[in-house]
Amino acid sequence: MSTPRTLKPGDTIGILGGGQLARMIALAAAPLGLKAHIYAPEEGSPAFQVADAVTRAAYDDLGALERFAKSVDVVTYEFENVPVYTAEFLAGHVPVHPGAKALGITQDRLEEKNFVSRLGIETAPFAPVNSVEELEEALAAIGRPAVLKTRRFGYDGKGQTIIREGDDPAAAFAAIGHHPAILEGFVPFEREVSVVAARTEDGRFNAYEVTENEHRHHILFRSTVPADVSPAVEAVSREIARRLGEALGYVGVFAVELFLVVVDGAQGVIVNEIAPRVHNSGHWTLDGAVTSQFEQHVRAIAGWPLGAVERLGRVEMTNLIGDEADDWLAVLEEPGAHLHLYGKAEARPGRKMGHVTRIFEE
Amino acid sequence: MSTPRTLKPGDTIGILGGGQLARMIALAAAPLGLKAHIYAPEEGSPAFQVADAVTRAAYDDLGALERFAKSVDVVTYEFENVPVYTAEFLAGHVPVHPGAKALGITQDRLEEKNFVSRLGIETAPFAPVNSVEELEEALAAIGRPAVLKTRRFGYDGKGQTIIREGDDPAAAFAAIGHHPAILEGFVPFEREVSVVAARTEDGRFNAYEVTENEHRHHILFRSTVPADVSPAVEAVSREIARRLGEALGYVGVFAVELFLVVVDGAQGVIVNEIAPRVHNSGHWTLDGAVTSQFEQHVRAIAGWPLGAVERLGRVEMTNLIGDEADDWLAVLEEPGAHLHLYGKAEARPGRKMGHVTRIFEE
Repeated sequence: MSTPRTLKPGDTIGILGGGQLARMIALAAAPLGLKAHIYAPEEGSPAFQVADAVTRAAYDDLGALERFAKSVDVVTYEFENVPVYTAEFLAGHVPVHPGAKALGITQDRLEEKNFVSRLGIETAPFAPVNSVEELEEALAAIGRPAVLKTRRFGYDGKGQTIIREGDDPAAAFAAIGHHPAILEGFVPFEREVSVVAARTEDGRFNAYEVTENEHRHHILFRSTVPADVSPAVEAVSREIARRLGEALGYVGVFAVELFLVVVDGAQGVIVNEIAPRVHNSGHWTLDGAVTSQFEQHVRAIAGWPLGAVERLGRVEMTNLIGDEADDWLAVLEEPGAHLHLYGKAEARPGRKMGHVTRIFEE
Repeated sequence: MSTPRTLKPGDTIGILGGGQLARMIALAAAPLGLKAHIYAPEEGSPAFQVADAVTRAAYDDLGALERFAKSVDVVTYEFENVPVYTAEFLAGHVPVHPGAKALGITQDRLEEKNFVSRLGIETAPFAPVNSVEELEEALAAIGRPAVLKTRRFGYDGKGQTIIREGDDPAAAFAAIGHHPAILEGFVPFEREVSVVAARTEDGRFNAYEVTENEHRHHILFRSTVPADVSPAVEAVSREIARRLGEALGYVGVFAVELFLVVVDGAQGVIVNEIAPRVHNSGHWTLDGAVTSQFEQHVRAIAGWPLGAVERLGRVEMTNLIGDEADDWLAVLEEPGAHLHLYGKAEARPGRKMGHVTRIFEE
């Protein structure tokens, strides 16, 4: 074992958050001989159903956090909005992967954009916005249409508004609640793609193939692999992930969301966002790759060897949103379709209830 | 949905037994949206780690059994030695799959052999033994060497003894504790193979390809698929499974252990044993088939469509017995090897601690 922090079978992974990502991490940990302890405030969290231990408490309950930290061998999380002070408090007792740096940077769209562009990696043009005056200046520099986003806690399309010709900047700033914000230039992208990658504490890295993602109503609808991208884009995208992971000192699985653009007839990519966690666009790896992103995340945070990332065919992953999950029987009837339901009791509109993977011979 | 007993996502599967088979059934149930409630008497049962609910009680605790039955939507089990009266008691409250008939027959080697041979399916020659006199008569009819086995509760080579030329029948009968027994003729088999199959309440059936099994010290050491058998044996073996399942009115996954014999240059099979449960020789399906035997079992007992049984390559499954599980890191380092540990705290000699699957391109 390479470091004193390496886990061994029988150890316990602590996971902050009790949704489907935590659930699938726990399900991947079990065959590796690891137990999962889920920490989440919500009653009936889906991950509770498959965990060895459960703590139901708030993310600022220091007593509960301390007991949790002392009962596990490593802590990870399923969502990027874990308070940084929570991660830092836990890190005083037990390794937390990914660390507070990745969390801090990716929680703030402005910090994230600054971080990426300082590495010389292209992003959409952007500018900070703290007032209507700054917004007007930013619009003059970046042009319209542009997207005004709150710096923090944006998720699946909430907390942002598009500013088109004729729109009133003051109304736009009001629409996002006058929060500290970032204005991003509108990127005329062809398609959205992503790279899901893993990195270990001692710098080992690998990445799955670039995934092509189709969104509907700001929610991921379908991912397909391989993406229809040039070999150059495939290589550049993975290299971007490698460099970002390195610069963040990242440990675990993360996703880089990219815009595919075409300039002078050649494909290129622009970084949209970094997600410091397993990612919906990596769900295809559950049945479609040698090692799933969930097992890969467990291996990475355990300090273990990373698994092989080869694809097992042409793969398609479709989310089941809201009452689409009512079609579960049709999925079970379809030869070769793999059903993944998340154990959520209530199918609210827009809620991710499950997904289906389909693997085709190439 | 075909019958009123069909499960729906959100329902709970009750599992008697808390070992690795129950654990892997529970892990397969979760992505289908089902919860698992484990009922087992042993503290620290491996399946407890991944279950939504746990009852730790004896199999004859009628109060605990009743509460368990009322909290689940179907009951299944991971081992064939569940007391029949326990299964029948539970069946008074909730569907139990497989049913008491399969349990009763497979718990008794003599009843099982009678059942199989009455269907015209070949077994080793056999005779009941209740006394030294009957044993001597049986030996005269069947010849030596022969195997004397207790009728009930034999498992992994316990409760049986070989009688060779010159061995004293009285000593042999004493060696198995004078229990009601069966004498089985020694079959000069070439190899051991098995069929893992699934059947639903309304008679749908499918079977995985014949698996070749290598035992060491009476414990399964390695399974490989495809087995080196003739197309005729492949077809006959599946047909045997289909007929046995039909005659048992079986619901769920079961395994038929077969001896591969060669008579006049042609391969044939003889039924050795029926296991009314998911089976170690089907563990290769976890990474090596479109649908794992565990998911298939869940689909069958839920009354759902059976999944596709196609193989994903040439597959090898190796058990990790006792301290072999200490090699987990080497397995993790091997590209494409899949580690499955069972979450057992103590690695006793002969104890199944985990297994490894390897899938090769054909």
